[in-house]
Amino acid sequence: MALSVPRIVVVGAGFGGLEAAKALDRAAAEVTVIDRHNHHCFQPLLYQVATAALSPADVAWPIRHILRDQRNATVLMEEVVAVDAARKYIRTTMNEIPYDYLVLATGATHSYFGHDEWAPVAPGLKRIEDATRIRRSILIAFERAEAMADRAAQNRLLTFVIVGGGATGVEMAGAIADIARQTLAADFRNIDPRAARIVLIEAGPRLLPAFPPDMSDYVRATLMKAGVDVRTDTMVTKCDEGGVDTNAGRIDAGTVIWAAGVVASPAARWLGVEADRAGRVKVGPDLSLPDHPEIFVIGDTAAVFASDGHPVPGIAPAAKQMGHYVGTLIAARVAGQSGGKPFRYRHLGDLATIGRRAAVVKFGRLQLKGFVGWVFWSVAHIYFLIGLRYRFMVAFTWFWDYLTFQRGARLITGSEQPRQK
Amino acid sequence: MALSVPRIVVVGAGFGGLEAAKALDRAAAEVTVIDRHNHHCFQPLLYQVATAALSPADVAWPIRHILRDQRNATVLMEEVVAVDAARKYIRTTMNEIPYDYLVLATGATHSYFGHDEWAPVAPGLKRIEDATRIRRSILIAFERAEAMADRAAQNRLLTFVIVGGGATGVEMAGAIADIARQTLAADFRNIDPRAARIVLIEAGPRLLPAFPPDMSDYVRATLMKAGVDVRTDTMVTKCDEGGVDTNAGRIDAGTVIWAAGVVASPAARWLGVEADRAGRVKVGPDLSLPDHPEIFVIGDTAAVFASDGHPVPGIAPAAKQMGHYVGTLIAARVAGQSGGKPFRYRHLGDLATIGRRAAVVKFGRLQLKGFVGWVFWSVAHIYFLIGLRYRFMVAFTWFWDYLTFQRGARLITGSEQPRQK
Repeated sequence: MALSVPRIVVVGAGFGGLEAAKALDRAAAEVTVIDRHNHHCFQPLLYQVATAALSPADVAWPIRHILRDQRNATVLMEEVVAVDAARKYIRTTMNEIPYDYLVLATGATHSYFGHDEWAPVAPGLKRIEDATRIRRSILIAFERAEAMADRAAQNRLLTFVIVGGGATGVEMAGAIADIARQTLAADFRNIDPRAARIVLIEAGPRLLPAFPPDMSDYVRATLMKAGVDVRTDTMVTKCDEGGVDTNAGRIDAGTVIWAAGVVASPAARWLGVEADRAGRVKVGPDLSLPDHPEIFVIGDTAAVFASDGHPVPGIAPAAKQMGHYVGTLIAARVAGQSGGKPFRYRHLGDLATIGRRAAVVKFGRLQLKGFVGWVFWSVAHIYFLIGLRYRFMVAFTWFWDYLTFQRGARLITGSEQPRQK
Repeated sequence: MALSVPRIVVVGAGFGGLEAAKALDRAAAEVTVIDRHNHHCFQPLLYQVATAALSPADVAWPIRHILRDQRNATVLMEEVVAVDAARKYIRTTMNEIPYDYLVLATGATHSYFGHDEWAPVAPGLKRIEDATRIRRSILIAFERAEAMADRAAQNRLLTFVIVGGGATGVEMAGAIADIARQTLAADFRNIDPRAARIVLIEAGPRLLPAFPPDMSDYVRATLMKAGVDVRTDTMVTKCDEGGVDTNAGRIDAGTVIWAAGVVASPAARWLGVEADRAGRVKVGPDLSLPDHPEIFVIGDTAAVFASDGHPVPGIAPAAKQMGHYVGTLIAARVAGQSGGKPFRYRHLGDLATIGRRAAVVKFGRLQLKGFVGWVFWSVAHIYFLIGLRYRFMVAFTWFWDYLTFQRGARLITGSEQPRQK
């Protein structure tokens, strides 16, 4: 490739970054996609890895394989540590990489609202490693309980607290209830997995605030029927090895899962620019930095507002729209055309599952719930998986698990040794 | 369950231990199966996890799920640390568990022939964690090479040394050659994965010594045609971060994989009895200890000889036969019958694949090689997988990968950060 073509660097191969790279498919440019992982993770199904329904490889695919046929794209597995906006290069742990255009799409991570010391005891769910760690933690809780005689300790081990009543929290609570009531029901001798206690804690007045109130009510009722203890208007004030403190009292628990908040990746710090409270970079109408029209920030890393003044939500379709917009915009500039219209977010809808056979869906005026919603949810997620192979594998796995009440990926792996809790 | 029934403790849920537990299905006894993992690992396909063809969950299944319908069986995930043969109990990190009969089936691990300091740089392949570690190491080598400009460093990174020319070594070498020549061929821009160098080192005069010499020659020729550098009569004298020293010179390499030897688990030490050079416990004709007719040692942990005087090989069918024998024997004793015939090993055959489309098979007088051998190998391995679900998933994965030259599980996961090598 000639050295004279513009160098476009995309940092982060999540939904936004990948879409930006793909929109540059036909640009006469050198596109470099940098990610610290070798895989793109399909985050909407990550909770299924955490709850032993799918394997990591079902929801994560090598970035370079996704882009193998895009001849102008190079993929590098490196970790970015700094951006020099004045001299136009980024620094990784290994290299310095110059750019003419830079797209930062580095996503977000869990936020403990200033209590990072809770991270070791209350893992969140953003990466493949988080998912296998939570899977290990859930499965080990049952194993430890089976091996001990002390009833109080058993009860504590078999209490699972999920903090945060958004989509991830609801999906985790529903899936853990399924594991306890169905998957594991017949597999133990000393304990009854069905006696496990699953507590879903939400600080606000209702679950899934993105949905209409009657759907929140439906979700709450469905979870409670599945045996989940739903506590709204409840604030966690402390997480430790033994459970959580809330404004309504202590809950002893063997496993605490954090699904309560996110904070943007440190792009604002790299750039030395202002960020909002969630760490997101403030961008202009074309998603570029005010002082640097060649630097774009997209996805969960950017503070973007819809035409109604509401912030654009941190969901996959939003990131994809921004990625497509920025990729197309840069392609136009590279081709010598002037910039087009400002970015405009189009909200397609919201969906969330509540365990086996139930989901809520809101697409414009279309509202679905229960089994019909669940079928819609399943079809939509399979459709968005990359590649026929994964669609087929995940569809088969779900179908099989639906028929048998089983989960195929019940592995406790990793270096962590089982501890005496 | 009444307290008066005999307590049978089986330690290790590999092929031998599981078979022993299953043979006790109808015994009026309390069977406790203890393993430090929650899963049974189908070791013959572990190399496919290490080479990104299968996911861990495709070849590992929860032990308690396998035994869920055996009402007299309890499964505990615990690590055994000692056996008190005089007072008849075992000690785990958490509990003391009494027994009337004890079956030790704790397998083997890699042996570095007194050089345990090689373990961190030359991982072996026995557990799921070993496989994902090797997978990470292979995939990261290509990623690192793509990100660097130094040709010498690239060449070193893209050199893979496999030590040991038995079935595991041959299968790993063939699979890594497939990855480099086919799977990754189109995915990189700065390096050509097909230029990767794969070196298979064997101390003896030929590969796969369990097979007839003409089949060893065929395996060698097939591997060399696939681009593998096969070096027999070559002894590794040192492994370090940068490669291996051999009696025939130094080989700089980014990845070294150990498939050269095994040593039995520490059962002999627990029992305070004599072991052979490979750490295996010497057992009597009924696989029990001479001084303790209630303690049996089976599988890779026991030194057992076939009727022709040769040692019984450390393969799955041998462990299963021993497990079945001991389980049946204990069941008879529990039922008040006297012991039966001594254990007699029946060798069914040997098989090994050499990458895509080639394998060697020797079953009595039946000898197959090439594509026919590969089909036989595939069908045999799918047949022995536990459960219809896994048979279907693995069959589909292989079929798909065969058609597309792809591998579905190319994930770099785990806590290890990519290092500057």
